[in-house]
Amino acid sequence: MRILIPLFPGITTLDAVGPYEVLRQLPDAEVHFPAAEPGVVLDGAETLGLRADSAFGDFDGTDVLVVPGGPGARPAQHDAALLEWIGRMHAAARWTTSVCTGSLILGAAGLLRGLDATTHWSTIADLEAHGARYTEERVVVRGNVVTAAGVSSGIDMALTLAERLAGPVPARAAQLAIEYDPQPPFDSGSPSKAGPEVRAYAAERRRRRG
Amino acid sequence: MRILIPLFPGITTLDAVGPYEVLRQLPDAEVHFPAAEPGVVLDGAETLGLRADSAFGDFDGTDVLVVPGGPGARPAQHDAALLEWIGRMHAAARWTTSVCTGSLILGAAGLLRGLDATTHWSTIADLEAHGARYTEERVVVRGNVVTAAGVSSGIDMALTLAERLAGPVPARAAQLAIEYDPQPPFDSGSPSKAGPEVRAYAAERRRRRG
Repeated sequence: MRILIPLFPGITTLDAVGPYEVLRQLPDAEVHFPAAEPGVVLDGAETLGLRADSAFGDFDGTDVLVVPGGPGARPAQHDAALLEWIGRMHAAARWTTSVCTGSLILGAAGLLRGLDATTHWSTIADLEAHGARYTEERVVVRGNVVTAAGVSSGIDMALTLAERLAGPVPARAAQLAIEYDPQPPFDSGSPSKAGPEVRAYAAERRRRRG
Repeated sequence: MRILIPLFPGITTLDAVGPYEVLRQLPDAEVHFPAAEPGVVLDGAETLGLRADSAFGDFDGTDVLVVPGGPGARPAQHDAALLEWIGRMHAAARWTTSVCTGSLILGAAGLLRGLDATTHWSTIADLEAHGARYTEERVVVRGNVVTAAGVSSGIDMALTLAERLAGPVPARAAQLAIEYDPQPPFDSGSPSKAGPEVRAYAAERRRRRG
């Protein structure tokens, strides 16, 4: 079972790594991280680099496509070669998925028109600009397109997908393998739960980073 | 504020990336990923590579040390140069932390003798062999040493640490930034919750991988 997680400059690494650590546990999983060309791709903070092990052109299809987001998703919406590749992979994939602002790339590739979908809470208007109907759920499954909310939601998305790909026991075993028994020390993981002071602080941080 | 996340061959990437995505959000955070030498370091599945941006020798101290785990943590327990470096960083660090079997490396460096600590559920005996007292909590804070349970627990650990490093608002804003509002589709993230069938399947998968 082939799983492709495309990399581009400015990704948020957890968007890619969360689903990777779940899906790679499944029987016969064969994961690749292709990019425009093989080599190190830097994240949005230009701090952490992930190695692209292959080039987009190396693949003529996939079982599962996982498109991560990050600050680089914004320019990626205008990367014609990437969008063409995404569309081509989607055409034959069993599942096309995104994490965070990866949904903006699916949208720019024309895959979300008229479809319920989600994205990071800060980019709802951008998602809707692609003709998607924003849906306030952590994981949105519509047909064979699965979109997830911000960053860490990719783990929940991948577990949902794992059950459909491999059945209940392997999916639950993947959760156990990564000991995903979340116990956050506080409860501000969504705008409504975070409250105004935390929201204002987070918005200011985002502004300063550009 | 300097945060070092050392890399070694065979890490589990989420152990490093989960805390990274939280801690990098904090004011004045400056994160580095050192290794024995700069370059790409492959994970335990030999699939995903993370770029080491620096060498251990480039640093004479740190504010925060985050030691990830993974299959490579087992040989790393016998890597004298790594252990010496870990001990030296710990001596002056404000916080020394580990995720998953990263605690075995802290243990091998002699930092956990007589201390409460945790690790991945599959390596409790290995942790205790280093003189630590295994403690069944997701995040164990003792003095300035913080150990976390398996893989995904590094996110909870980093949020706990973020509050101590930067206060409640920046820590909660980091949780909001990564939209960490976990909603796993099932509840098998610990051995007791997973039940016998899933536990047996997971154990068999671990055995086959070696």
